[in-house]
Amino acid sequence: MAAQTLTNLFAYIDAHRQPFLDRLIEYLRMPSISAEGIGIADVADVLVRQLRSMGFDARLMPTAGWPMVLGERREAHGAPTVLLYGHYDVQPADPLEMWQSPPFEPTVRDGRIYARGAGDNKGQHFAQLLAIESTLAVQAALPCNVVVLLEGEEEIGSPHIAEFVCTHRDLLRCDLVVTADGPVHDSGQATVLFGVRGVASFELRAHGANRDLHSGNWGGVAPNPLWTLVHLLASMKAPDGSITIDGFYDNVQPQTPLERQALAALPVDAARVKQELGLTRLDAPTGRGFYERLSAWPTLTINGLHGGYGGPGSKTVLPCTAVAKCDIRLVTAQTVDEIFDKVEAHVRRVAPDVEFVRQGGMDPSKTPLDSPFAAPVCRAVAAGFDEEPLRVPAMGGSLPDYVWTQVLGVPSFVTPYANADEANHAPNENLEVERFFKGIKTGAALLAELGARANSGLVRSSL
Amino acid sequence: MAAQTLTNLFAYIDAHRQPFLDRLIEYLRMPSISAEGIGIADVADVLVRQLRSMGFDARLMPTAGWPMVLGERREAHGAPTVLLYGHYDVQPADPLEMWQSPPFEPTVRDGRIYARGAGDNKGQHFAQLLAIESTLAVQAALPCNVVVLLEGEEEIGSPHIAEFVCTHRDLLRCDLVVTADGPVHDSGQATVLFGVRGVASFELRAHGANRDLHSGNWGGVAPNPLWTLVHLLASMKAPDGSITIDGFYDNVQPQTPLERQALAALPVDAARVKQELGLTRLDAPTGRGFYERLSAWPTLTINGLHGGYGGPGSKTVLPCTAVAKCDIRLVTAQTVDEIFDKVEAHVRRVAPDVEFVRQGGMDPSKTPLDSPFAAPVCRAVAAGFDEEPLRVPAMGGSLPDYVWTQVLGVPSFVTPYANADEANHAPNENLEVERFFKGIKTGAALLAELGARANSGLVRSSL
Repeated sequence: MAAQTLTNLFAYIDAHRQPFLDRLIEYLRMPSISAEGIGIADVADVLVRQLRSMGFDARLMPTAGWPMVLGERREAHGAPTVLLYGHYDVQPADPLEMWQSPPFEPTVRDGRIYARGAGDNKGQHFAQLLAIESTLAVQAALPCNVVVLLEGEEEIGSPHIAEFVCTHRDLLRCDLVVTADGPVHDSGQATVLFGVRGVASFELRAHGANRDLHSGNWGGVAPNPLWTLVHLLASMKAPDGSITIDGFYDNVQPQTPLERQALAALPVDAARVKQELGLTRLDAPTGRGFYERLSAWPTLTINGLHGGYGGPGSKTVLPCTAVAKCDIRLVTAQTVDEIFDKVEAHVRRVAPDVEFVRQGGMDPSKTPLDSPFAAPVCRAVAAGFDEEPLRVPAMGGSLPDYVWTQVLGVPSFVTPYANADEANHAPNENLEVERFFKGIKTGAALLAELGARANSGLVRSSL
Repeated sequence: MAAQTLTNLFAYIDAHRQPFLDRLIEYLRMPSISAEGIGIADVADVLVRQLRSMGFDARLMPTAGWPMVLGERREAHGAPTVLLYGHYDVQPADPLEMWQSPPFEPTVRDGRIYARGAGDNKGQHFAQLLAIESTLAVQAALPCNVVVLLEGEEEIGSPHIAEFVCTHRDLLRCDLVVTADGPVHDSGQATVLFGVRGVASFELRAHGANRDLHSGNWGGVAPNPLWTLVHLLASMKAPDGSITIDGFYDNVQPQTPLERQALAALPVDAARVKQELGLTRLDAPTGRGFYERLSAWPTLTINGLHGGYGGPGSKTVLPCTAVAKCDIRLVTAQTVDEIFDKVEAHVRRVAPDVEFVRQGGMDPSKTPLDSPFAAPVCRAVAAGFDEEPLRVPAMGGSLPDYVWTQVLGVPSFVTPYANADEANHAPNENLEVERFFKGIKTGAALLAELGARANSGLVRSSL
């Protein structure tokens, strides 16, 4: 990439800070609450028009729920194709009384723009669109091929994205996916995420007698479903933290040296975290690094366990039912189906009377830190944010990232632009204005970086 | 005991069936609900007058709650002294709309008298009083010494009886205690109970972070109080049913051959019990007799366990607190304090962060099946009910029976008069009229049986 190109691009973006900010404010003013069915069509229409204004072949694509906005401009022969993913729906704004300024009257205070969707995700995908627009303004053509896919149901759990990507995998063919969403690392430093852990949620339901009994008259005679669950759960995870379900770790890929290095490089103040959360110790097993816990290992969490008396004082009851809700966070190459099968086999063996109920699941997703596209993506973020980004291996919560890495089979990167305290899903959601501009620059730098890879061995999906 | 004496006594009782029933109906008409503070003073007054009319030195004895009614007639030199215990308070009558006839308008239907307190306990201690009255009518003097103690707070958990008995142990000195309360064995056969299991209730409170966390962002980092409780509880009782708290069984007295024999003689239809309760199996450990489970062994019951999400579907939460409520049923010679100490030491060792909270407790009580007073008590029941009684070793729920066996240091027997389906504590409480008369006869036979033991080695507390 010619340094001059980037200089020109960034100069153009800096010269348009005010109109870009004004346009973001106009965009944020439009509600698009998927959970409540408010404003979806209007916002989708704005996006289709914006894409068409940039020469994109753009349209609404129906799903069984709210439609996808899809735009493509594929004319950079020999250059890679990037799919830019984002979502145009926002969370409900409740509780309204907690907002300092109304959620759909965007307000700039102290260098931040406050509005529902400012960070999650309008401010971020709008920066991507302005990056494309700026590139076209400076260069007349795009240096790489671009597909824009904006979802309208992310905030209600992306119920149709997997089916959509499966059905339209040819239409969506690309060399990589880049998502600008979420906050940067806690430290505030620029960040590139290489994946997410998966999740598999399930319920265990234990039954005893057909009614609650008196513990004095029936204790020792009627089985207690709470004891059944306690013993079943204790057979699934040992006090040392190891998960003791047969074959559970079979498909866990060991950390690569690069991942180990990247995790060790993430800034963390474990003492401060413990203090903030009121913890005297971290969870078992001990001896794992803070981020190693969140990235390299699957977890088994009891989300809830309920049975019997829960009121004040004591009650000598022997309860008749008990329910545990659990989730497992998966790491590559575990899969939801594999893990459900293994847990179910364990339950059948240890506590055959207990009902095992599969709930939602999402496969993990991981893009190798040494993916050939890692370098251009990180260089783009470094250019846009003017600092070297942290590289975060697959971590934390679960998103349907696997549709890119597993269904489309391409590397996927998340380049968050928002501040760590963006308050997404909460009142007073906000985005630092400066990060919005840095996001536009990052997006423009990304297109330039990818253009510089034209006619390299990287390109599989081009024209 | 001269057979003629008993014949005369029973003839007198039979001749007075109607007036005795009428007087019971008058007595049941008076509410005395300790939980609601209704009618206590009036009923206590009736009892004092009844006792005085029989030549008893009778009075109200204050406690920190409702008063005790105490009466004594100690003039049978050389004869044993029996303390007849009962309670004059009743349960609240709610839900009123479930009663076929109003709870305080006693009604005889199909050979049963329906009223609150019919079985629990007015019908039974009133039978004892009428037994004394009948004896005096036939014999002019009592063949043994009699102390009557009627409590006004049994239905609210007898909060002051232990202190009362400790304070007045001299006043209450006796050779045995007999309580006519509760239903007979399920089979309907006449029954003598030789004790009860004790109980020790406690709470385990586990804490994690100072707020609920997202399982994806914090699973593997923040300890989960539900896992803490699962592992702690699993360390207290094994899946095979054995309680694995250090020293827990140290003071459990092995069953005596007599007890084993008595338990084996209790009629039970385990298949029917399982069917009625919807159970496919009895609780672990297997290989124990049905009544052996309820009599010979302590139990550890989780009464309730609550933490985290309990609503519909799934929620990926890592909860910040969890609470388990438990009770332990104790057998002789375990004590509440000993067991609390052992459980607490176990918790301190295995899960030092978990709060251990002692709640209520009651020591177990057991009178040997070969107590020298067992024979006269059982003979009296056999005479009154015209069938050999079942002998039930210490069993089931917990009552403050230990105040007799431990504080007064005398044997204690429960001779229930009520039918097994008396519906105590429930709407339509009832007592089979025939059992009321059999109860009066049993009480009269008991006094005669004890009188026949005058000047024997049995008597320690007489004049």
